[in-house]
Amino acid sequence: MSDKPWGGRFSQSTDKTVETFTSSIDVDKALYAYDIKGSAAHVKMLAHEKIITEDEASVLLKGLSRVEQGIEQNEMVYSDALEDIHMHIETALGREIGDTAKKLHTGRSRNDQIALDVRMYLKVETQAIMGLLLSFQSILVDIAKNNMDVVMPGYTHLQRAQPVLFSHHLMAYYEMFKRDYERFEDSLKRTDVMPLGSAALAGTTFPLNREYTGQLLGFHRISDNSMDSVSDRDFAMEFISHAAIAMIHLSRFSEELVLWSSSEFSFIMISDAFTTGSSIMPQKKNPDVAELVRGKTARVVGSLMAIITLMKSLPLAYNRDMQEDKEPLFDTVNTLKSCLDIYCRMIPGIEVNRETMYAAAQKGFLNATDLADYLVVKGMPFRQAHSVSGKAVAFALNREKELHELDLDDFRQFSTLIDQDIFEFLSIESMISRRITHGSTGYDSVKTAVEKAEKDIESKTGGK
Amino acid sequence: MSDKPWGGRFSQSTDKTVETFTSSIDVDKALYAYDIKGSAAHVKMLAHEKIITEDEASVLLKGLSRVEQGIEQNEMVYSDALEDIHMHIETALGREIGDTAKKLHTGRSRNDQIALDVRMYLKVETQAIMGLLLSFQSILVDIAKNNMDVVMPGYTHLQRAQPVLFSHHLMAYYEMFKRDYERFEDSLKRTDVMPLGSAALAGTTFPLNREYTGQLLGFHRISDNSMDSVSDRDFAMEFISHAAIAMIHLSRFSEELVLWSSSEFSFIMISDAFTTGSSIMPQKKNPDVAELVRGKTARVVGSLMAIITLMKSLPLAYNRDMQEDKEPLFDTVNTLKSCLDIYCRMIPGIEVNRETMYAAAQKGFLNATDLADYLVVKGMPFRQAHSVSGKAVAFALNREKELHELDLDDFRQFSTLIDQDIFEFLSIESMISRRITHGSTGYDSVKTAVEKAEKDIESKTGGK
Amino acid sequence: MSDKPWGGRFSQSTDKTVETFTSSIDVDKALYAYDIKGSAAHVKMLAHEKIITEDEASVLLKGLSRVEQGIEQNEMVYSDALEDIHMHIETALGREIGDTAKKLHTGRSRNDQIALDVRMYLKVETQAIMGLLLSFQSILVDIAKNNMDVVMPGYTHLQRAQPVLFSHHLMAYYEMFKRDYERFEDSLKRTDVMPLGSAALAGTTFPLNREYTGQLLGFHRISDNSMDSVSDRDFAMEFISHAAIAMIHLSRFSEELVLWSSSEFSFIMISDAFTTGSSIMPQKKNPDVAELVRGKTARVVGSLMAIITLMKSLPLAYNRDMQEDKEPLFDTVNTLKSCLDIYCRMIPGIEVNRETMYAAAQKGFLNATDLADYLVVKGMPFRQAHSVSGKAVAFALNREKELHELDLDDFRQFSTLIDQDIFEFLSIESMISRRITHGSTGYDSVKTAVEKAEKDIESKTGGK
Amino acid sequence: MSDKPWGGRFSQSTDKTVETFTSSIDVDKALYAYDIKGSAAHVKMLAHEKIITEDEASVLLKGLSRVEQGIEQNEMVYSDALEDIHMHIETALGREIGDTAKKLHTGRSRNDQIALDVRMYLKVETQAIMGLLLSFQSILVDIAKNNMDVVMPGYTHLQRAQPVLFSHHLMAYYEMFKRDYERFEDSLKRTDVMPLGSAALAGTTFPLNREYTGQLLGFHRISDNSMDSVSDRDFAMEFISHAAIAMIHLSRFSEELVLWSSSEFSFIMISDAFTTGSSIMPQKKNPDVAELVRGKTARVVGSLMAIITLMKSLPLAYNRDMQEDKEPLFDTVNTLKSCLDIYCRMIPGIEVNRETMYAAAQKGFLNATDLADYLVVKGMPFRQAHSVSGKAVAFALNREKELHELDLDDFRQFSTLIDQDIFEFLSIESMISRRITHGSTGYDSVKTAVEKAEKDIESKTGGK
Repeated sequence: MSDKPWGGRFSQSTDKTVETFTSSIDVDKALYAYDIKGSAAHVKMLAHEKIITEDEASVLLKGLSRVEQGIEQNEMVYSDALEDIHMHIETALGREIGDTAKKLHTGRSRNDQIALDVRMYLKVETQAIMGLLLSFQSILVDIAKNNMDVVMPGYTHLQRAQPVLFSHHLMAYYEMFKRDYERFEDSLKRTDVMPLGSAALAGTTFPLNREYTGQLLGFHRISDNSMDSVSDRDFAMEFISHAAIAMIHLSRFSEELVLWSSSEFSFIMISDAFTTGSSIMPQKKNPDVAELVRGKTARVVGSLMAIITLMKSLPLAYNRDMQEDKEPLFDTVNTLKSCLDIYCRMIPGIEVNRETMYAAAQKGFLNATDLADYLVVKGMPFRQAHSVSGKAVAFALNREKELHELDLDDFRQFSTLIDQDIFEFLSIESMISRRITHGSTGYDSVKTAVEKAEKDIESKTGGK
Repeated sequence: MSDKPWGGRFSQSTDKTVETFTSSIDVDKALYAYDIKGSAAHVKMLAHEKIITEDEASVLLKGLSRVEQGIEQNEMVYSDALEDIHMHIETALGREIGDTAKKLHTGRSRNDQIALDVRMYLKVETQAIMGLLLSFQSILVDIAKNNMDVVMPGYTHLQRAQPVLFSHHLMAYYEMFKRDYERFEDSLKRTDVMPLGSAALAGTTFPLNREYTGQLLGFHRISDNSMDSVSDRDFAMEFISHAAIAMIHLSRFSEELVLWSSSEFSFIMISDAFTTGSSIMPQKKNPDVAELVRGKTARVVGSLMAIITLMKSLPLAYNRDMQEDKEPLFDTVNTLKSCLDIYCRMIPGIEVNRETMYAAAQKGFLNATDLADYLVVKGMPFRQAHSVSGKAVAFALNREKELHELDLDDFRQFSTLIDQDIFEFLSIESMISRRITHGSTGYDSVKTAVEKAEKDIESKTGGK
Repeated sequence: MSDKPWGGRFSQSTDKTVETFTSSIDVDKALYAYDIKGSAAHVKMLAHEKIITEDEASVLLKGLSRVEQGIEQNEMVYSDALEDIHMHIETALGREIGDTAKKLHTGRSRNDQIALDVRMYLKVETQAIMGLLLSFQSILVDIAKNNMDVVMPGYTHLQRAQPVLFSHHLMAYYEMFKRDYERFEDSLKRTDVMPLGSAALAGTTFPLNREYTGQLLGFHRISDNSMDSVSDRDFAMEFISHAAIAMIHLSRFSEELVLWSSSEFSFIMISDAFTTGSSIMPQKKNPDVAELVRGKTARVVGSLMAIITLMKSLPLAYNRDMQEDKEPLFDTVNTLKSCLDIYCRMIPGIEVNRETMYAAAQKGFLNATDLADYLVVKGMPFRQAHSVSGKAVAFALNREKELHELDLDDFRQFSTLIDQDIFEFLSIESMISRRITHGSTGYDSVKTAVEKAEKDIESKTGGK
Repeated sequence: MSDKPWGGRFSQSTDKTVETFTSSIDVDKALYAYDIKGSAAHVKMLAHEKIITEDEASVLLKGLSRVEQGIEQNEMVYSDALEDIHMHIETALGREIGDTAKKLHTGRSRNDQIALDVRMYLKVETQAIMGLLLSFQSILVDIAKNNMDVVMPGYTHLQRAQPVLFSHHLMAYYEMFKRDYERFEDSLKRTDVMPLGSAALAGTTFPLNREYTGQLLGFHRISDNSMDSVSDRDFAMEFISHAAIAMIHLSRFSEELVLWSSSEFSFIMISDAFTTGSSIMPQKKNPDVAELVRGKTARVVGSLMAIITLMKSLPLAYNRDMQEDKEPLFDTVNTLKSCLDIYCRMIPGIEVNRETMYAAAQKGFLNATDLADYLVVKGMPFRQAHSVSGKAVAFALNREKELHELDLDDFRQFSTLIDQDIFEFLSIESMISRRITHGSTGYDSVKTAVEKAEKDIESKTGGK
């Protein structure tokens, strides 16, 4: 006969390899504090509704507290035979307080219990990630502010396109991480829903007060359908998909850090403390952190695919497959947090090679669009102006010159609309200044954007 | 010399295979109406800001309108040489109105233009999908209402667990699709942002009034960073990830439809009009639609993977890789719409075999939990009651009986707490009635849930 | 100044959070035995080529051996500061034998060293998995043999289609796992390639004898391009993609186990030792192992996406991103092994409900195709025969009968070609017997298939 | 009553939206030639086995031939009502030859028919791709040969590491595509299996000669299990996973092309015919083809995810979900072919800036490893030599010099083992020459590798 808590009808004990195979304790022990907090709230509610006595509640709460201390002091012996964190805690509780422990699980199933634990965990972690996102945004804004007028080549297709402010480039990332923050904020509404009381799938016959449990645990809502409550993993799928998008942003930023610290670009220098060397090549100073962040994007994408594949085609309500939801979720939380954290530490110390950036913006005909714009202002339709400018570029290229190195006579071969003022017009400073539309790289636009960002961050952090 | 609109600096014409390889016209021609609408707004703004004259604007607008008619009447000849829908329209415009057409592209780049087109498209389609989700929710609620007291076995692990109301089961799906609606509503905020005026990447030197263009096109916001505007595809990633979650829900529902229409379950009958037969087996009546919806989940998951993989590690700003964003996005829109649409047509006609469901709920010891609850109510701690009930199950199993088919004497072998009232207690109706917690399968709970859902749907559709 | 083995040019020491972030020791310590074995072979080769002396080699080998013992006796203290398993071992070696340890890394880089370690690991694990696949095939064949004439309904679209032998159904899985075996065998050719001597990326100036190292380590080939050697992770991508396909097979098998052990099918009974119960529902006996195997498919699919996403667009040669290859690889190895292992234990004990299966094959018009075939044999074209049979099914359905329960007169309404012999013709045994094409479900075909499989397995295991 | 070929038992006709939703004709019409070829072989076999008469066979074959001509001359009218290519062809055949057409489907089901068609298609396409891979390998080898002694910096972490030959770098890609070829060759064994005769799932009662059909169609094997035959999509999963790996290789190559054609690297120049410009920036010459190939990697990865997700957890045998296998497969075939084809056209015309590459290899301390090796040769243990070299790098860096620009006295500060011969030792040519291990970047190694590759390609193409 089985000695399991569910063993009544079983005539054979569980195979040892099955215990190992089905056990989730290695993973879900991370949830112990949430499990105990949830149990404590459940106990208080049971007493509040007189389903158990106040005395029983008191014994249970003290016991739970002792179990928690035991875990925190590393006294818990984990065993695959006890399957999961819920059984570990309940068994330990039995050792602490005896038979009263058997009342804890009244009106509850592991199906709604695990849903509760994971939602409690994810609420806390989502908020932590939102905090890190704000910190990182704040760092980006600070660097933008401190390098307000640093010019670099703006790229499309990794070809130099037009000069932009380095601050403007950084503020593009600010926008991305701002959206990430908003997405997590949105998803939080759907995570912040209290499922306990759904029991195995059908609700329970005990007169539970689910609203009360929800209040005790700080939830804003309780769930509306018991079958959905135990079979819903949307919150995990949604969280991981938002995290994947955030990692995509980090991967793009990392790619640029790697490019910029290459010999070829030399736009930035990452400090020694945040680079590592080679066991064979003594000169190497590698942007390992940026590479690893880029690489870790892959594991979050993998986790997204795992959780989605997992849930596909599962009939209602709970299925054991769903036990596999935790590793992709926990790994995603940890990965995103550690990537944001390391960048919050590393990015402020990056050295910006402003001269190199400026020099790069001078080479590669980044003022060809402005030559065309010049002609449009003088009355030529845009498509024709574009063509004239293209020809001037080809001409200059042949002579190994930049546009601003041509003579006025050279220019006038292509259009007599061109005058002496072209040289001022084609200067980097003038080009940047002239970009005046909202959101452009113009000095004023970027200043406005930075100020707006500062205010937005302050309003979210409460000026912390 | 190249004859391309960008050919000024090129000395060699484009290889024909390159034209074919890089062309996106087969895909992006779907955007023509948005492209023309966006161009028209751009023209109006240019005139409003006196960048072009009112007369030029008038000519351009009439020309655009004629081009649109031409496309609608299938007069447009598509060609890889013209690369994309933007160039097709601009070239056609040139044929219609001559040189004035060359002014259309003033202060604009294909980089911000395509971002605009796709956002306009996605706003419309997201709203269409939200509408379909509401319709489907409404259908689920209607069926729930019409089958309020139909009982079926509730399953966990695909093993019969406890009796539930069929209406409760359906309402679990209502909850899922309600969350899908909310997710799309949330993402819409981030799609509804007007990027035009960002030009290639840096903004433009023309005094565009981006707010005005945004208003003309019905956008709630304009974008704040030009580099982000042309390199951001978050809206596509977010939309597809929400769509993937919605498809996961549809796949779960489909799996159940397939199970329920099997000979083994026989819970429902899908009408002949929505099933198909076999070319070899004359008796077959297959739930093809449900299987295909389940299968189409895979293509949306594939599209999610594609768009995310696509964007990984791309440096700022626009890169040509991003042209590949449209097929996964368009295919996801079309797939999700067609799956919701077909279910809105098929599901109302499903026949529910209420007797079969009821009979199934009678077999498999679905009242074992209630036996345990009975003992708890009589004072036994839950864990012990669970064990007693398990033993009773084992006993009945041996005799090939259900619990409610045992004698009172049989019961009392396991606990003398059991009395005659056990038989009423273990009846299906009594079990359902007793499930009283919010969100449970109890008659009252489900009735409340259905009413709440009806109100919610009505508030969203405005009673349509 | 950095105290790292690569710290010569560094003026600042590594940030502690960077050490933690970039460390791979938690993961790659699993490779210690391969790392040491590889180092030992490298040492022997260095001595063989007189790059180091025999005495030095002897000291190094003894030291390596002592380090290995230390690890096996849990004496190694792991530290993020030492980055990876290579540095841990080399540092420990230094403690054991002093300065001679510094010669170990001659002509070697961590880039080729880790490539070597992982390939050694994967060779061993691929062979282990091939062994498990063979065992599992063997089990399937045994069950098929022991249940040779058990009849069940064959399904398409989860609708009963035609009667098949249960053994035939199992042999379909045999075919799948046979292909998996072949795929792993094929991939082994590409894993079994020795990369050491490629050094960082360019090869080395020391006169290494790579062929000799390869022989010492039992490799069949050495790699042909040093840059490819350190940047190639094809072997991991290929292995994981084959593993994903194998898991898909296991997921399909698991789905059937779950279906078959439902109350509705009741085709099999999984023993108590391989099922688990519910903490709330005393009657439950859940096919958890099958559900978990099905669920674990998702993590392997996730790992496949992770490794592929990881490698996308990485320029040559080694990039730090590639450190992230190990977790998806190791997890895939462990998952596939444990799933195969648990099924090798569980499947032999499954009880087959042959009567239930037979009864199910009697209901649902599974002989409708044979009725059509009967008519074809009597001269009717197939398409017409199909239609006649369909009408007979509709007729029987109306009368709540099966085809074989109709009268001859009933039949002759549909075609006068039908005679008394139809009843024998439509019996299950006759239907099975008549399926005579190679690979069909006929008694003889399946017997042949089982015998062929036994021989094939024997030839691979050498009769073990 | 349904007018479908399977409509006998149906009392209601199919809903029009269901016809559209379930139709696969838009996709599978691409298979028409294979379908007809397969049908023709089936007819020949039926006659050969006297299941139909020679006359009937002759009529059927002529009819099939006329149907094929009709399709080739665009006379086929496709309709969702006819579901798929099989029904279109059979219906057209009926129009051509009347009732005899009804005999075509004898002993066959669409389940085995579609499996046959797709396998025939994939055999041809796999071979086409193998041919393209060989062509591309040949191009890489040619460029390597023509640029044998061009030196470039070898990179790890995108940091300059050691000088390598450009030819060696290209040969790394040769190795990757060689493995791709081998993988496709391996998978072909499993695609080249003839499934026809498996019928719906159970085999058939007609005395088909499957071996004969297989021979007529040029298959090397026939399938061994009918249920597996109709439910197996391994060949598609395996093909797409190999294609994904090949695309990963192409993405890495593309990334390098993009980097190398940036202003910062300027290592290569892609010809005007294979680049495109910007609609707004006249100077732009973008490596669009390389970007698109990189981007198209994402769609193949998406297709891999789609096909795997599709197949997960499907019970035996055929399920309608599997209809969704074709789009990911076809799209993968087309994408991989077009990417290989465009590179076979583009890559030969790439201009190599050998001076820029050489200059880059001179800057960035790429000889630091060789300085360490120099010291090892003079007797210093490697780890110590590495540290000395690192310090010399730091010293030179401070003085803004390269190592080879230091004085002998400078060197001797770090080790008195250093002599005048250091300067020759640290020259690029000397460094390359000294790399002598098999597979290294040494002149001789690369020459050997190129020769070996030429022979290998020739042996595969038969000198074509």
